[in-house]
Amino acid sequence: MKPIGIIHSPFKSKKDMPIQSVGAKEIKGFIEIYPEFLPGIKDLDGFSHIYAIYQFHKNKDYKLITRPFLDNTERGVFSTRAPKRPNPIGLSIFKIESIKNEKIYVSGIDVLDETPLLDIKPYVSKFDVIENTKNGWLENVMHKSENLKSDDRF
Amino acid sequence: MKPIGIIHSPFKSKKDMPIQSVGAKEIKGFIEIYPEFLPGIKDLDGFSHIYAIYQFHKNKDYKLITRPFLDNTERGVFSTRAPKRPNPIGLSIFKIESIKNEKIYVSGIDVLDETPLLDIKPYVSKFDVIENTKNGWLENVMHKSENLKSDDRF
Repeated sequence: MKPIGIIHSPFKSKKDMPIQSVGAKEIKGFIEIYPEFLPGIKDLDGFSHIYAIYQFHKNKDYKLITRPFLDNTERGVFSTRAPKRPNPIGLSIFKIESIKNEKIYVSGIDVLDETPLLDIKPYVSKFDVIENTKNGWLENVMHKSENLKSDDRF
Repeated sequence: MKPIGIIHSPFKSKKDMPIQSVGAKEIKGFIEIYPEFLPGIKDLDGFSHIYAIYQFHKNKDYKLITRPFLDNTERGVFSTRAPKRPNPIGLSIFKIESIKNEKIYVSGIDVLDETPLLDIKPYVSKFDVIENTKNGWLENVMHKSENLKSDDRF
């Protein structure tokens, strides 16, 4: 695995960040794709949203049982989106604002500045919108993600 | 990056597979989590769907411009979900059928048998259902993913 680019965001510290993209709708930044991979972004301009798959580059260890931002109960890490995971892979959905001068300008950014990007995949409604889901321990707290900011627990 | 487990599916060959989870609703399999990571699946049983992040372990090279299953036009790889990518990371949404004897039984499986699993994240409606998306070149062909099977192009 090696980065294909880098995500530029306003966030220099892990604290006081939006904890999910849904709480970062007004947050803008851009993705710089390294020159050797630039041909791969052809046709991306037709999509409104992308999955960004990236490295939680500031997290060196992990906890299998963790206390997520949205709860005071300890949860299994795979039932959370917490950054300290066995493989430090992050997944966010960004909105494409524009693609100009070989940069992808996006909103909904909930990642640290200089986050290494591993992959981009188009968000496709037919594949990715799942109706009638059960949301486990998040069912009654997920709405808080619009306003809650991160603290220093991770 | 090291696998946290392995995905068991009925598919032994890259050919004649569903090309997306949406075309694999009846396909069942299970995820075996390696013992050292098992505590991390606590609380997962409350969720109906998960993101599986895995390695396209049979793809050793990549193409930045590729002809995806759903189109006859060459597309930038990051505007596709094609398996030959600079970082061979796959993303699928599986439905949890049950969790028994430390195995996660799922449906919607569109991956090869013995696929190395890198991460599981809960699918959370508040975070992951995006309304009113633009789906680029996939807009008029994405419905075909329910029935189209893979050929040997990758």
